[in-house]
Amino acid sequence: MPQNIRGYAAQSAATPLAPYSFERRDPRPDDVVVDILYCGVCHSDLHTARNEWQGTRYPVVPGHEIIGRVSAVGAEVSRFKVGDMVGVGCMVDSCQHCAACDQGLEQYCAEVPTFTYNSKDRQDGRMTYGGYSERIVASDKFVLRLSDKLDPKSAAPLLCAGITTWSPLKHWKVGPGSKVAVVGLGGLGHMGLKFAKALGADVTLFTRSPSKEDEARRLGADHVVLSTDEAQMKAVAGRFDFILDTVPQQHDLNPYLATLKIDGVHVLVGLVEPIDPPVHAGNLIFGRRSLAGSLIGGIAETQEMLDFCAEHGISADVEMIDIQDINDAYERMLKSDVRYRFVIDLASIDKAA
Amino acid sequence: MPQNIRGYAAQSAATPLAPYSFERRDPRPDDVVVDILYCGVCHSDLHTARNEWQGTRYPVVPGHEIIGRVSAVGAEVSRFKVGDMVGVGCMVDSCQHCAACDQGLEQYCAEVPTFTYNSKDRQDGRMTYGGYSERIVASDKFVLRLSDKLDPKSAAPLLCAGITTWSPLKHWKVGPGSKVAVVGLGGLGHMGLKFAKALGADVTLFTRSPSKEDEARRLGADHVVLSTDEAQMKAVAGRFDFILDTVPQQHDLNPYLATLKIDGVHVLVGLVEPIDPPVHAGNLIFGRRSLAGSLIGGIAETQEMLDFCAEHGISADVEMIDIQDINDAYERMLKSDVRYRFVIDLASIDKAA
Ligand SMILES: [Zn+2]
Ligand SMILES: [Zn+2]
Ligand SMILES: [Zn+2]
Ligand SMILES: [Zn+2]
Repeated sequence: MPQNIRGYAAQSAATPLAPYSFERRDPRPDDVVVDILYCGVCHSDLHTARNEWQGTRYPVVPGHEIIGRVSAVGAEVSRFKVGDMVGVGCMVDSCQHCAACDQGLEQYCAEVPTFTYNSKDRQDGRMTYGGYSERIVASDKFVLRLSDKLDPKSAAPLLCAGITTWSPLKHWKVGPGSKVAVVGLGGLGHMGLKFAKALGADVTLFTRSPSKEDEARRLGADHVVLSTDEAQMKAVAGRFDFILDTVPQQHDLNPYLATLKIDGVHVLVGLVEPIDPPVHAGNLIFGRRSLAGSLIGGIAETQEMLDFCAEHGISADVEMIDIQDINDAYERMLKSDVRYRFVIDLASIDKAA
Repeated sequence: MPQNIRGYAAQSAATPLAPYSFERRDPRPDDVVVDILYCGVCHSDLHTARNEWQGTRYPVVPGHEIIGRVSAVGAEVSRFKVGDMVGVGCMVDSCQHCAACDQGLEQYCAEVPTFTYNSKDRQDGRMTYGGYSERIVASDKFVLRLSDKLDPKSAAPLLCAGITTWSPLKHWKVGPGSKVAVVGLGGLGHMGLKFAKALGADVTLFTRSPSKEDEARRLGADHVVLSTDEAQMKAVAGRFDFILDTVPQQHDLNPYLATLKIDGVHVLVGLVEPIDPPVHAGNLIFGRRSLAGSLIGGIAETQEMLDFCAEHGISADVEMIDIQDINDAYERMLKSDVRYRFVIDLASIDKAA
């Protein structure tokens, strides 16, 4: 018997999210059923709800920073049992046989991963619905184990904001001795500061607001550079090995590229648009610099990141909201008025809308 | 007594190159005096002669693909003796003490290398003049040894077109098993094909002209892809580890980026302008791809490249010209009407202009 589930959905690009009931499949042999406790609110949720990246199929139930408890498991599942605290991130399945999947890079699956929402389940063809709901069903291979050392509320954003910043820092071997700069201090940026610091790097925040300095230092920045101040930018010319750029809007990368060392790398993790104003090729050629992009992270790597967080006492700074407040939360997120991630307490779903 | 030298110079951005006599310094203790036999004609020569990159100081004597014989050496020079066949490339000096210079990356010298022309000598402050002339004087550290296995005429373009393509192929570890694509079949592109093939890669040429197929195969391409043909481009989606992009004009990188594998790298070696049309960040993020730039190469690496060429029988395909024909050669170069590099025979300087 398919389960009837309460959630919040957008019915069109122009309508706010509202209560929506839908079915979840009965667990398949490899499935884990997770009763959702908390779900972080990601910029992608908003982009998708409003069809800003095109391709949204309505109704859409967003949410891919999911923490919950296992309430049932399929017959073949041995890694999880009822009562386990677990996470589900941006993906719930992938082809499992391409070169990317073989390397644990399911996010780059050649046959495209099944995303947690607004995606087609690769077995039954039904649309996936995300974590703005009371329960989710996912293949055990895409379910993450959560240490009891982690607070489940503030762990929720690790499933997207966390892995999205962790993965490039690890891939480009940031560690002791690295000089790292983070651009943008939102959900991703604040995790970038924490991770870069915990990995032993010398960490700088680029910001346009002098008011963010104290916060940045609290979160792990050793230095704060006002990107609107030409003298400050000039003073850090050629300084960084690695720039983690979390800004989701178009912005001029050229001033940042000039602050990279020879062989330095500027990685985009927030932008999914044309790079405009255009990058000047001279900023790449003079210094053999690279501009790269990185998408979330693989499943094994996500588990590593969660384990690292448990060990080092790292989690997101969150502001808890009721699910009924999601539309207000979107408006505040658009104004960067959140420190640093909204997390929905799904217990609120029992309240009157 | 400073030596009086005959050469060809542009007196302004709007005037053709014409005979010009100037002085070369007497050799300093570390200097090598080279009687120039041949000098390749590079796109940079034309850009600089016409002030297309700004910053040209007139008169300018271009030329940085220089082959000649040592005719004198300074008191402290032990590596070269009169009669040696040598090369001089894009640089004649650098600070010799910055981190880049210490790593043999003089091209990225923090204090800017002294370029072979249109640069200020860092010791006496006089402008440098290039290889469109009968003699050059350069520090022995920036003089390259030429094996007698190499034909000096066709070796000339190795000093810029050669090292510019060799350096990124080596830096990004192209070798057996690599799938490499070269964009553009000019002076740089034809060397890119030869080197990628000699390094053991599977080599593809991207071209807009079906007529180039036979030539491309002769030069080392295993495959030729018509970049204007959508079906052919789609067929190579996600195929390449490395793209060597030699095109010196603005062009759309997005179709090429889509042909990179996960972690693939697209390297610009010809473009020194804003990247317009803009790169779509999604083409970097989905696949963790990198867009990078690379500038010529270091001195030790240039020597390695020359030695590799001698060992593997590699040199440029050249068309010899008299120095009196340089302005016509520029016009033909602009129409890509050269296979694949013009080389000036400096013996022609004795002819009537
Ligand atoms: Zn997200
Ligand atoms: Zn796959
Ligand atoms: Zn050149
Ligand atoms: Zn230097």
